[in-house]
This record gives sequence, structure tokens and C-alpha cells, in this order.
Amino acid sequence: MSTGTGRVTMADIALASGVSIGTVSKALNNRGQLRENTREKILAAARELGFSQGGNTSSASDVITIGLVTSDDIGRFSIPVMYGLEDAFGPDQASVLVSNSRGDLVRERHCVETLAARNVDAIVVMTNLTGPRAPLPKTSVPIVYVMGESADEDDMSVIVDQEQGMLLALEYGAALGHRSVAYVAGPRQQFSARVRAQAVQEHVGTFGMSLVDDRVLYGNWSEAWGRQAVQMLRQRMEPADLVLCGSDEIARGVTDGLREANISVPQDVAVIGFDNWAPAAHHSRPPLTTIDMNLEELGRAAGARVLEAIGGKARPGVEAHPCQLIVRDST
Amino acid sequence: MSTGTGRVTMADIALASGVSIGTVSKALNNRGQLRENTREKILAAARELGFSQGGNTSSASDVITIGLVTSDDIGRFSIPVMYGLEDAFGPDQASVLVSNSRGDLVRERHCVETLAARNVDAIVVMTNLTGPRAPLPKTSVPIVYVMGESADEDDMSVIVDQEQGMLLALEYGAALGHRSVAYVAGPRQQFSARVRAQAVQEHVGTFGMSLVDDRVLYGNWSEAWGRQAVQMLRQRMEPADLVLCGSDEIARGVTDGLREANISVPQDVAVIGFDNWAPAAHHSRPPLTTIDMNLEELGRAAGARVLEAIGGKARPGVEAHPCQLIVRDST
Repeated sequence: MSTGTGRVTMADIALASGVSIGTVSKALNNRGQLRENTREKILAAARELGFSQGGNTSSASDVITIGLVTSDDIGRFSIPVMYGLEDAFGPDQASVLVSNSRGDLVRERHCVETLAARNVDAIVVMTNLTGPRAPLPKTSVPIVYVMGESADEDDMSVIVDQEQGMLLALEYGAALGHRSVAYVAGPRQQFSARVRAQAVQEHVGTFGMSLVDDRVLYGNWSEAWGRQAVQMLRQRMEPADLVLCGSDEIARGVTDGLREANISVPQDVAVIGFDNWAPAAHHSRPPLTTIDMNLEELGRAAGARVLEAIGGKARPGVEAHPCQLIVRDST
Repeated sequence: MSTGTGRVTMADIALASGVSIGTVSKALNNRGQLRENTREKILAAARELGFSQGGNTSSASDVITIGLVTSDDIGRFSIPVMYGLEDAFGPDQASVLVSNSRGDLVRERHCVETLAARNVDAIVVMTNLTGPRAPLPKTSVPIVYVMGESADEDDMSVIVDQEQGMLLALEYGAALGHRSVAYVAGPRQQFSARVRAQAVQEHVGTFGMSLVDDRVLYGNWSEAWGRQAVQMLRQRMEPADLVLCGSDEIARGVTDGLREANISVPQDVAVIGFDNWAPAAHHSRPPLTTIDMNLEELGRAAGARVLEAIGGKARPGVEAHPCQLIVRDST
């Protein structure tokens, strides 16, 4: 497999050693958990293929350039995806140019046209709002959709399996012995909020737990809503011993609300967030156990789709990637 | 003045009506505070020049493309600058492509080369760490530095006047009748932390106030440091009635620390932050009075420098822009 640049990429090494690009990245960057023989196999394949890491003196013209169109106001979702994209191609072998649609569909189309006119090699379109979305007009370069999947099944989409993420939280809560779960959700009109909430409703019983009052508390994505939800939960007849939250911001508000009501986290009630967003998850007291959507991995997966498409082997369809449980002190 | 695109821009209107591009943007977007006759003068100039807002059917090829190189991990500084840049050229007349250097100087140079190779019309280089920085090698397109100024005085730099920002906070605190000021700073080794702290030390007396124990408390940019600083301040002989903070994250920690020590904000102690960063400033209890660095305005100013440079009238030197006081409930 060649990227057309005459360089050995992480994708080449992944193919040669039979692992994912993410695993190759871990091995080459010496991070994450890997079995030692896996690491050695990858490093051997890298040597054999003549992969050179660092000391790269490439000029700008012989790297792949990917255009990333994002609707992400503060970069919290797009930056990890951008890093993953760059990683997928190996050190200094790809540049990512980001164009911001400000969540406006007309502007999004304009961003795609601008990038295509600047001769990028491929375009990755990322929407914060998950769920199927209208496909963009085809361009001269391949388009890969991230987070929000294209409704056209001939397009390539790489998304997060949010239901699986919520299952991780439920499974972990059950393993800790919790039985009574409250779910504090984002706004009902948003797909992300609904898909996470529905996962809890459908599967809470599977793990031998029940949902307090058999209902989800829909609100918004704010800390203030998390604090308010604590007030509501305290008036319930049936107390919860695990509060699952639709986002880390909500969970941070929940931990504040509980602490101020002299309810200890995690001794009296455990709290699990969603997003693993540092300003909320790390600075919460206690720091949050949460679900990480592995956005860097998602970016690497999008990069792999891009490579295939550039190589004339586009794989259409929707590819869902798993989340990961991050355990901190709130459970 | 022409941008070479044959379009009327906000800069043209600014020139024709004798106001700044920021003022033109406010008038055209009908936001912010403007005298009615100023607004009318600008709208008249826009009509006369044939400026068309919205309904723009431009294709990607006839807009200006600016490359923005940022070292900003979570986009909190670069996104407003990006919006300001786009605004400077009028609706749909400019596209900004962002390339992330991850704070690495080798990668920063690589980002600049990539953007130049993609035929952008100009490059804006933004560093989070303020203070003079090594200039980049010259490229075929003009470079404007934002936040961190180039050490080469032949370059164009647009920076924030942080000392003036701190003076706004001191002036406002004095006007509210405060007399004894504590200053909780970021890390001493960072220019931003030092320049803000030194402004307080130098000017606190000018406003008839004094600095508690005559010293600045240096720490880091975290909420945890803000809470810890409250513990330290409570052991002082001399109590503060105003706590100025080097960032909103510190200030959020300070308000939490004070509330948990049963000290009321702003009744017992007033708190002022710095940055006007929503996750900290809005979600703090109470929401923070703070200093806004007007990053969108900074982006617009960089856009104006870009326009001049493209038009062959580059204005070298460092241009410092004022901050703004945002009053909320912590004072």
C-alpha cells in the first residue's frame, strides 16, 4: 500500500504487522498499554519498511494535506480528532488545515469548497451533533464524515458508539454493587442526549439495577442543571446510589450539589460523567470517573479511511468505534 | 483601497467612514453599543460603496484565504481570533485555515510552510505565551503575529495590552471603595503571569490601595491553586477586601474557597478574574467580574494588517490593543 508520497506511513506498518493504526501509533510513540511482543513486532515491521521517525526534513510539498471542517466552537472535540488525523500518517507526513463552519450548513459547504480549491488531498467533515446528517455535494477529493454520519450509505462515516459507552458505565456501576441509578441527561431535543439516555433506559435492568422513578431527567449540558438535578433527586422517595450524567459538565454540577448537601462522593453516592473533558472531569471534586469517546482514535480511524480513499480503495459505510471507561475518584 | 478581489470589504467601509473595522462590524451586524449617527454613517458608506451583505454566492476561488497557525490546545484563544479575522473581511469574503503547531517551534515552521505551499494569501501566527518571540523565516506571503510579538521590529505584530487590562481592574476595585488587594497569580516563569502581576505591584498605590503583605502570590493557572490561595490568605494578619486573580480559573477556585470558608462574595470580599473564559467566568458562583482581552477585536486588527500588507502597504511594528472590563456578580 502506498500513499502516493513514496513514504512509509503508519498505515503501511499497520498492514504489515496486522494491527490497527492506533496500535502502531502507541508502539512508535511508546505510550499506552501494549503487550511487549506486539510492540516488538510493530517496531520490526517499521524497521523493515524503512520507516523513519523524527529527523524528518520533508518540505511542505511532499506531505499529505487534509482539510478538517468542524462546527466546534471551542475546539474541545475537533482538536483531539485533528491530532489523531495527523498521527494516522506518521510524524510530519500530514498537515491538517481546519476550517470552522460555526455550525452553519451554508458555511460548512463553503468551507468544503475552499479546502477543495486549495488542493487538499481529502476532506474530513466533523459535526458535534451526532446522528445522521445530510450528505454534502461530492467534491474532487474524498470526504470522510466524523461524529455525525452521512445519511448517504455510499459515503464514509466514522462515529462513536455512544450506546456502548453508556453500557461501560452501567457495567462498572453494577460491578461496584450499585443498584439504584439516577440518570441526569442533556437536552431531550439533541440526538446525543437521547441516545445516551435510551441506552441507560434499555439496559439498566440487564445489569440488575433499576432507574429511579423509572425516568430520565432531561435538562441541558450545564453545571447549573447538575446542581438543580441534585435538589430534585433529594425530593425523591427512592434514593439513588449511582448518578450517571450525560456530560462531565453536568456531573461536575452534580458533585458540587451533593457536596453542598453534605452527601459524600463516592461514599454515599457514586457519580459517572461522559466526555472526559479536562476542565470538568479533572477539576471536579472529586475528579470524575467518566466515559472517554476516544476522539484521537476516531481521528486516526478517519485518517485510515482517507488513506484508503486516496489509494483508490474507499470503503463506504458507517464505522462505529468504542468508548473507554476512565476511572477516577467519583466512584 | 482594494483587496485585489474586486469586492468591497469592511476595511473599505472603515476607511470611507473614518472608523475602525471593529466599529464597521458592529454596525453591519447590528450588535454592540454604537451612537445612532455613527451607525447611520457606516451604513451609508456601505451602501455607497456597493457592499453586499449576505446572499453572497461567491465560489471558493474568489475569497481571500488566511492561514492561522496556533499553538492553542483547546482553541480557547484561537477561535475568537479566527472569528475576528473572518469578520475583518466581511461576510463570506475570507476563509481561515487553521494549522496547529502544538506549541512546538519546529512544527510551527512546518505549519507556515504548508500554508504557504497551499497558496494562502497571508499567514497569521498566534502564540499563547505572550512576550517577544523569535521571528519566523520570511515566506512569499505576509505574516502577521498575534498575542506573542515578533522580536523583529520589521514584522507586524498585534498584541494585547495586558497592563492596561490590569489597570482597569484596579481602577474599578478602587471605585468600589476597596483598599486592601490580594493578587493571586499564575506561574512566575510565564510572561503573562509576570506582566499582569507587575502591573498590580506598580500601580496599586496609584489608586490609593495597598497589596496585602506587599507581595504577589505566584502559583499556577488552576482552580486548585485558587482554593489553596484562599487558605493562605486567611492566615494573613491583614485581610484583603479585593482578590485580583491572574486568570478566571484561579478566580473560580478563589470564589469556591471563599464560599466554603463561609466568606461571602462580593459582600465580604470582591473577586476579579482575567480572560473572560466562559467555562470559568460564567459557571463560577457568583459569575465573575473579569478582564476580557477582546480577542475577536485582536483578530479583526490582524485582519486589517493583512489587508494592508496584501495591498502593498504593510505597517511594521507592534500594535497593542486594549482590554475591556466585564462586570458580573463577584464585585
